[in-house]
Amino acid sequence: MRDWDVYLITGQELSRGRTTPQVVEAALRAGVRVVQLREKDMSTRELLTLGQTVRALTRRFGAELIVNDRVDVALAIGADGVHVGQADMPLPYVRRCLPAHMYVGVSVSNGEQVGVAEQAGADYLGVGPIFPTGSKSDTDPVLGLDGLRAIRAQTSLPIVAVGGITIINAQDVIQAGADCVSVISALTAADDIIAAAEALLHKVRQAQRRMK
Amino acid sequence: MRDWDVYLITGQELSRGRTTPQVVEAALRAGVRVVQLREKDMSTRELLTLGQTVRALTRRFGAELIVNDRVDVALAIGADGVHVGQADMPLPYVRRCLPAHMYVGVSVSNGEQVGVAEQAGADYLGVGPIFPTGSKSDTDPVLGLDGLRAIRAQTSLPIVAVGGITIINAQDVIQAGADCVSVISALTAADDIIAAAEALLHKVRQAQRRMK
Repeated sequence: MRDWDVYLITGQELSRGRTTPQVVEAALRAGVRVVQLREKDMSTRELLTLGQTVRALTRRFGAELIVNDRVDVALAIGADGVHVGQADMPLPYVRRCLPAHMYVGVSVSNGEQVGVAEQAGADYLGVGPIFPTGSKSDTDPVLGLDGLRAIRAQTSLPIVAVGGITIINAQDVIQAGADCVSVISALTAADDIIAAAEALLHKVRQAQRRMK
Repeated sequence: MRDWDVYLITGQELSRGRTTPQVVEAALRAGVRVVQLREKDMSTRELLTLGQTVRALTRRFGAELIVNDRVDVALAIGADGVHVGQADMPLPYVRRCLPAHMYVGVSVSNGEQVGVAEQAGADYLGVGPIFPTGSKSDTDPVLGLDGLRAIRAQTSLPIVAVGGITIINAQDVIQAGADCVSVISALTAADDIIAAAEALLHKVRQAQRRMK
């Protein structure tokens, strides 16, 4: 969790025909330092094979790799951590399956969930949706920047903001208290992924420096 | 894997409106001693919650519990083992995630897969489909009793036969070399699950005694 700024979440179906390894490699080349593997409708073996490829890429670029939901796949490919949502395995069970050096992020969308995640020992929070988004089938109400500020006031855990974040609003999100922004389609669906990632990283790092 | 005879595979969608815990409890009451939790289209949390219920039931009746595919869920609920198919995590990765006392079964449908599974240290083989079946979306060719005999001649690992097994053909399957028969709809979709399980257990145990 060192130096996170832009946190790429993968999504083959949102990558306009490019493969997830192609998208990830472009983002890593631009300087992205953390990737969450999040793919739907794959068999365990397909996810494992893809995970091994993405693990090798992230290693090559010195970036961290988080696996969404699948604790078993994270263990099998030697990921740095696991990210769980409210419909995934509760954190105490995740911890029981993982070695101590792997960390766990939890998706939260309200203050109650923040409290539960903090109590259970989450290493970071995925907070959102900040803005409306088409990438995830979220039914949780949009938090907005005010909702993000309220959660920031509640917790000292690192916050990865998620949902509808683009180069236009990324600085506002950092200013509202997020430590890092996560994106899916802002990168996976960009015409030029490297250029889009470089521009987004620049904006986020600029805002992070201002917050120090 | 002690004393397996009838191996129940669960399937909420094949249970004619009864819940998986209801189906499992009826089968356990009849004397079934091993259950594989195999459910589709559930979130990890739903599967975990269901798994905990089924784990409590199997413990109460002194039966064993295997989880299909999901190594993480098996770990989290303290199952006795994991069953993996050819599209699931390969056995060497599964072993790496599991403590030594948990065992691993592998689905095989031809001699080559038997060799790979045996080499990798499978504890038992799920061999099939023996007969045509509507329960699983298998595309593998039907083995028939001759195919089962050929695999029996190839390996000394315990064989759990799978696919289209009913009270009518269960004895033939044991005579062809299976150690145990697995069923989904023959029990989950039975009018009277307890009566169907008792009748099937009787047939299978009779055939097992004849094979000794």
